[in-house]
Amino acid sequence: MKNRLKAPRPAEVKIADDFWSPYISRVRDIMIPYQWKILNDQVEHAAPSHCIENFRIAAGESEGEYYGAVFQDTDLAKWLEAVAYSLALRPDEELERLADSAIDLIGRAQQEDGYLDTYYTIKEPGMRWTNLREGHELYTAGHLIEAAVAYYQATGKQKFLRIMCRTADLIDEVFGKEEGKIDGFPGHPEIELALIRLYHVTDEPRYLKLAKYFVDARCGSPNCFDREAKSPGFHHIFPEFEHLGYNNAQAHLPVRKQKTADGHAVRAVYLYAAMADLGCECDDPSLLEACRTLYDNITNRQMFLTGSIGAAADGECFTCDYDLPNNYNYSETCASIGLAMFSLRMLQIERDGKYADTVERALYNTVLSGMALSGKEFFYVNPQEAVPEHLRTNRTLRHVLPKRRPWLGVACCPPNIARTLMSLGQYIYGADEETVYIQMFISNEVQFTFGRKRVTIAMETAYPYGDTVVIRVKNPDNARFKLAIRKPGWSKDISITQNGREQKTRLEKGFCFVEEQILDQSVIQIGLDMKPMLVQAHPRVRQNVGKAAIVRGPLVYCLEETDNGDNLGAIVISGNAELNLEYLPDLFDGVMTITANARRIREDVWEDRLYQQCTEDETISCRIRAIPYCLWNNRGTGEMLIWIHRR
Amino acid sequence: MKNRLKAPRPAEVKIADDFWSPYISRVRDIMIPYQWKILNDQVEHAAPSHCIENFRIAAGESEGEYYGAVFQDTDLAKWLEAVAYSLALRPDEELERLADSAIDLIGRAQQEDGYLDTYYTIKEPGMRWTNLREGHELYTAGHLIEAAVAYYQATGKQKFLRIMCRTADLIDEVFGKEEGKIDGFPGHPEIELALIRLYHVTDEPRYLKLAKYFVDARCGSPNCFDREAKSPGFHHIFPEFEHLGYNNAQAHLPVRKQKTADGHAVRAVYLYAAMADLGCECDDPSLLEACRTLYDNITNRQMFLTGSIGAAADGECFTCDYDLPNNYNYSETCASIGLAMFSLRMLQIERDGKYADTVERALYNTVLSGMALSGKEFFYVNPQEAVPEHLRTNRTLRHVLPKRRPWLGVACCPPNIARTLMSLGQYIYGADEETVYIQMFISNEVQFTFGRKRVTIAMETAYPYGDTVVIRVKNPDNARFKLAIRKPGWSKDISITQNGREQKTRLEKGFCFVEEQILDQSVIQIGLDMKPMLVQAHPRVRQNVGKAAIVRGPLVYCLEETDNGDNLGAIVISGNAELNLEYLPDLFDGVMTITANARRIREDVWEDRLYQQCTEDETISCRIRAIPYCLWNNRGTGEMLIWIHRR
Repeated sequence: MKNRLKAPRPAEVKIADDFWSPYISRVRDIMIPYQWKILNDQVEHAAPSHCIENFRIAAGESEGEYYGAVFQDTDLAKWLEAVAYSLALRPDEELERLADSAIDLIGRAQQEDGYLDTYYTIKEPGMRWTNLREGHELYTAGHLIEAAVAYYQATGKQKFLRIMCRTADLIDEVFGKEEGKIDGFPGHPEIELALIRLYHVTDEPRYLKLAKYFVDARCGSPNCFDREAKSPGFHHIFPEFEHLGYNNAQAHLPVRKQKTADGHAVRAVYLYAAMADLGCECDDPSLLEACRTLYDNITNRQMFLTGSIGAAADGECFTCDYDLPNNYNYSETCASIGLAMFSLRMLQIERDGKYADTVERALYNTVLSGMALSGKEFFYVNPQEAVPEHLRTNRTLRHVLPKRRPWLGVACCPPNIARTLMSLGQYIYGADEETVYIQMFISNEVQFTFGRKRVTIAMETAYPYGDTVVIRVKNPDNARFKLAIRKPGWSKDISITQNGREQKTRLEKGFCFVEEQILDQSVIQIGLDMKPMLVQAHPRVRQNVGKAAIVRGPLVYCLEETDNGDNLGAIVISGNAELNLEYLPDLFDGVMTITANARRIREDVWEDRLYQQCTEDETISCRIRAIPYCLWNNRGTGEMLIWIHRR
Repeated sequence: MKNRLKAPRPAEVKIADDFWSPYISRVRDIMIPYQWKILNDQVEHAAPSHCIENFRIAAGESEGEYYGAVFQDTDLAKWLEAVAYSLALRPDEELERLADSAIDLIGRAQQEDGYLDTYYTIKEPGMRWTNLREGHELYTAGHLIEAAVAYYQATGKQKFLRIMCRTADLIDEVFGKEEGKIDGFPGHPEIELALIRLYHVTDEPRYLKLAKYFVDARCGSPNCFDREAKSPGFHHIFPEFEHLGYNNAQAHLPVRKQKTADGHAVRAVYLYAAMADLGCECDDPSLLEACRTLYDNITNRQMFLTGSIGAAADGECFTCDYDLPNNYNYSETCASIGLAMFSLRMLQIERDGKYADTVERALYNTVLSGMALSGKEFFYVNPQEAVPEHLRTNRTLRHVLPKRRPWLGVACCPPNIARTLMSLGQYIYGADEETVYIQMFISNEVQFTFGRKRVTIAMETAYPYGDTVVIRVKNPDNARFKLAIRKPGWSKDISITQNGREQKTRLEKGFCFVEEQILDQSVIQIGLDMKPMLVQAHPRVRQNVGKAAIVRGPLVYCLEETDNGDNLGAIVISGNAELNLEYLPDLFDGVMTITANARRIREDVWEDRLYQQCTEDETISCRIRAIPYCLWNNRGTGEMLIWIHRR
C-alpha cells in the first residue's frame, strides 16, 4: 500500500481495557450467541430474522418463502465477520464449528456460476442484476466478501474466501464498460471497499480494478438507474422510496465532482471509504481531494456532536449545512460506523490527527449508544435529545425509539456494532517503516517489526475516564523507530515523558513526534488535558443557539431524567459553570459522571396557561449530573438531553 | 336558543374596516372568481380540482372518472357558502346566477332518494354508508347543508335548502339506534353542527335530534368503525392512515369522557363546536362541561401562540401537553377556523371574554396567514418558523411549504378561509334581550332591536394597529340596553368613556359592563393598552425555553429574512427590549411594524468548524423589524421566525 499507515490486524492487538474490554466481552459472550439465535429465529419477542432459513431455502434444503429485507443475507455476513475477529482474538472451537456450518450453508446456497444472494435466488429468480439501485446484491456480496476476508485471516481456512472469490469473479465478468457487460454500479456502496479488502488478501488486481470501476462508473451518462428502470419487467422493491433522488445513492454527480456530503448517510461514508482506499491505492489525487472536501463538509457542517450523521429520517440522509436537529435527526448507528471507517482510512493516508478525533467521536458516542449494556437491545436512530411522551404521540418523531429494541426489522446496525467492536484493534495504531502512530488510547499490547527487530508496545490507561496513558516499550534489539503520539483536538496540552524525562516533540497535524530514540524498557507517559468542558455549536446550528453541551475528552455527556428529573429543557447552565468529576463505581459497573451547579426554570410560579409577558425567568438552583451519552437509556425509559440551555 | 348570546347574521353587520375590508374584498373580488375557475379546472399551474366535473358526471351530464379527494364536493359547498355571505353583503346578479347554476347542478347530481355525494355516486355506487370512518359522506353533506342554510338566508331562495333537507331526511332515515338503521357516526365531524344550523332555519326538531344522536353515538360499544371494517367488501380509502387510532377521529372515548383534545385537530374542534351547540340547545351540562375541559386543555396546553393547533403532521393531530414544535408543527388553517368556531360558541354560551381572545388569536394570525395577499395562494400548514433550505432538504419538514401554492391537492383550507372572512360579522357582537356584547373591534355598523326599539351601533377603529375604538350609538327611541365591552386578556387596562365622561364599569369574565344608560347619539370611546410586548412560553414548551415572541394586541409578530437577513436564529433580544411601533404606509398597503434593538451572534469570529469550547457569544448590535405573522411570506421565499432568542 502506498505511503499509507498500516494498521495491525485487529487480532494482533491484545486489548485489555477497563472501558472497552467489557464491550468486547459483551459482544463475544452475549451478542454473538444472541445474534445466532436471532438469525435462527429462536428469540421470542424479537423481530423475526429468517436469515438462516433464507439460505436453507436457497440451498434447496428447506421449503418456504423468502422473508426479510432484500439485504437480509448481510446479517449473517456481519455476524460471521464479528465471529472471525472473535476467533482471532480467542479461539473457540464450538463457535468456529458453528461458523463453519454457516459457511457451508452459504456455499450450498451459492449458484453454479458463483452467484450468491438468497433474495434473488428465492424470490426473483431470473431477475438478478436488473435493479442495481434497490436490489442490494452488490452490497450483500460486499459484506459477505468482508466476512470471508476476515474469516480467512482469522482461521486460515480458505473455503469462505473461495466461495466469495467465485462471486467476485462472476461480478467481474458481469460488470464493466466492455461490450456485453452491464455498465452500472450499486445503489448502496459496499462492494467497492470489500473488493479492495479482497484484493489485499488475494493480490488479484482484477478485484482492485473492479472496485475502481464501480466508483468511477457512479453517475455515468446515461445513469444506469435510468436504463434499468425502463427495462421490461422492472419493478420497485422500495416503492416508498421512489421519491428519493439519485443523490440519495450518491449517483447525482460523478464522485470527483461531489463537494458536499449528500444522500443516504451510510451509503455516503461507505463510498467515501472506498474512494479513500482507491485514491491511495491507485495514486489518484483527484479522489483524495474529493475525500478531503467531503470529510470537511461532514465534520464542519453536517455532523452531530456525538459523531453521528444523517439529519433526515426520510432518505436516512444528509440534508444541508448546519441542519442538525436534536430530536428528529436520524443519526443511524451504521452511519457512525461508516464515518469511523472513512475517517480511519483518511487518518492512515493523511496522517492527520483530526481524523482520529472523528473516529473517537463516532466510536465513543454513537456507535456505543447503538447497543444496550445488556448486549441484547439496540438503537438504529440515535437522537440528541428525547422526550418519551413526544416520541409516543408525535409521529414526526416515530423513527426515534424511546427504548432500544431486542432486534430490529431492518437489522443492519446490531451486527455492524459487533464487527466494529470485535475489530477495534485496527483503530489504535498506524505504522510505517519507521514510526508507530498512537491513534487511540486503549490499554493493549501489540508488536511491531522494524527491519527484523521486534518491538512490543504495551499501553495502559484508564482513558477515557483517566487522563494518563502509560506506554511500556520492549525494544530488546534496539530497533530504531519513532513514536508519534496523537494530541487530540480537544486537549489543550499534552505532556510526554520517557522514563520520567520530559520529551521534546515536534507537533505536526495533531501528532507529537517524540524526537528521542525509544529504548528498550522505556516507559512513555502521556498526560492529556481532560478537563470537562462546555462546548457550543456554530451559530448557524439554530437548534443549539444559546445552549451548551458537556464533553470530556472524546465523551459527550447527557442528562437523563432519572438523575435530573423531567423537563430537562428547563435546566439552565452558566457558560462558565464549574464541572466536577464524580466517579460512581456502582453505576454501570463504574462510570465517570459530571456534576455541576445549574438552575432550573420554575414551573410552579406559572399560572396554568401557555403564554405570558416576559419576565426574568424565575429559577431555582439545582445540581445536575451528566453521564456519558453512550450509556443513556440503560435505566428505563426517560427524557434525555445533550444540549442544555446556557446563560 | 337558550340563554345564549345571539350573533347578528353576518350580512346584518356592515363591515367597513381598514384592516379587514381589504381581506373581505380580496375574497369577494379575487378569490371567489378565482376559486370558481379552480373548481372548473380553468387555472393553469394549479392543482386540478375536477369538482364541478364530478357533479356533472354524477348528474349523468358528462362522462369520465371521479377525480379528487373523497370529500371533493365540499370545495363547491364552501364556495357556495362564501358566495352566499358575499351576496348577502352586496348583491351581484352575475355571481348569483353562477351560484344558482351550481345549485341546479347539485340538484341534478342528487339521487332519487336524496342521497348526494359524487364520490360514492360515481366511484363506489352501492357502497354508500359502508365506510363511515373514511368515506366523508356525512362530512360532505354537512358542508352542503351549511352552504344551503347560508344561501337561503342570503337570497331567500329555497331550492338549495330543499335539496339539502332531502339529504338530511335521508340521513335521518338511515341512521339511528332503531332496528334497521345504521348505528354509527362519521369519522370526520361536521354534519352535527350543520344539522343544528339546519334546525335553526327549518325549526325541524328531527335535525336537532339527529345531530345529538351523532354526538352521543360517538365511540359506541361496539364501535361502528370496528363493525364496518369487518363487513364484506370493506376496503380502506386511506390505507396510508390505517395506523391511526380511533382517537384520530375522537372515537376513542364517549365525548363526555374526553378530557384532553386528541386526534385530528380539525375534526376535534368541529366536534367540540357541535357539542357546545348541543350542550346549550339541549340544556346538557355534561356536554358543556366537556367543552370547557377540552377548551382549557387546548388553550392552556396545546395551542400555538398564533392560535393554531395540531402539533403533528401525521394524523394532522394534537399530540400531548406542551408539545409545540416551531418548525415541524402542522397547524392547519382549517383547524384554526374550527377553533374560532368552537370558541365563538363558547363565548356566546359562557359570556367569557377569554373565548374571544382565542377567536382573535386564531383569526388575526393563522387564518389570515393561510392566504397570500394576492388572494390566490394558500398555506395548509402554518409553521412558527421556517428555513427554506431545511424545508427543501429535510423531508421530515416536507408538509411545510416554503411558499403558498396556487391551489392545494386537498383544498379544504382556501374555501374555508373564504367562507370565514365573508361571515366575519358574526364574530363581532353577541346580544341577549338587554345587553350588547362587543366581542371584537372592527369598524362596522349594525342594528339591534330591544323590545321593538331599534338601536344602531357604529364602530370605528384602526384596530389592530390603533388602540382606540369609537362607538356611535343611535338610540332614538331610548331603548334600555346595556353595553358589555370586552377587555382583551392582553390589555392591562381599558378606558371607557361616554360622551367624554369616564364610565363606571363592572368587569365580569373579561367584559366591562357599562353601568350608565346608553343614550341616543352617545359616543362611547374605548381605549386599549396595545403596548407591544415580548411574551414567553411555559417552561415545559421545550422549543421556546429562553425565547421571546413579539406580540401586540391580537397580532403575533415575526421576523422575516427580507427585513433582518438570514440565520434569524442568531438574533438575540433582551427580555426588556424597547419595542417601537413603525407604521410603513407602502408595505402591504400599510402595516404597523415593530422595531427593536437586538444583538446578533457573530459568525465571522468562528473558525470553519461546528463545535468549540463555550465562550461568551460575541454579538453585534442590530436593529430588527417584525411584521404581523399573518403577512409573512408575501415578499418571496425566505426565513421566518416567531420565537426569538432572549437574553
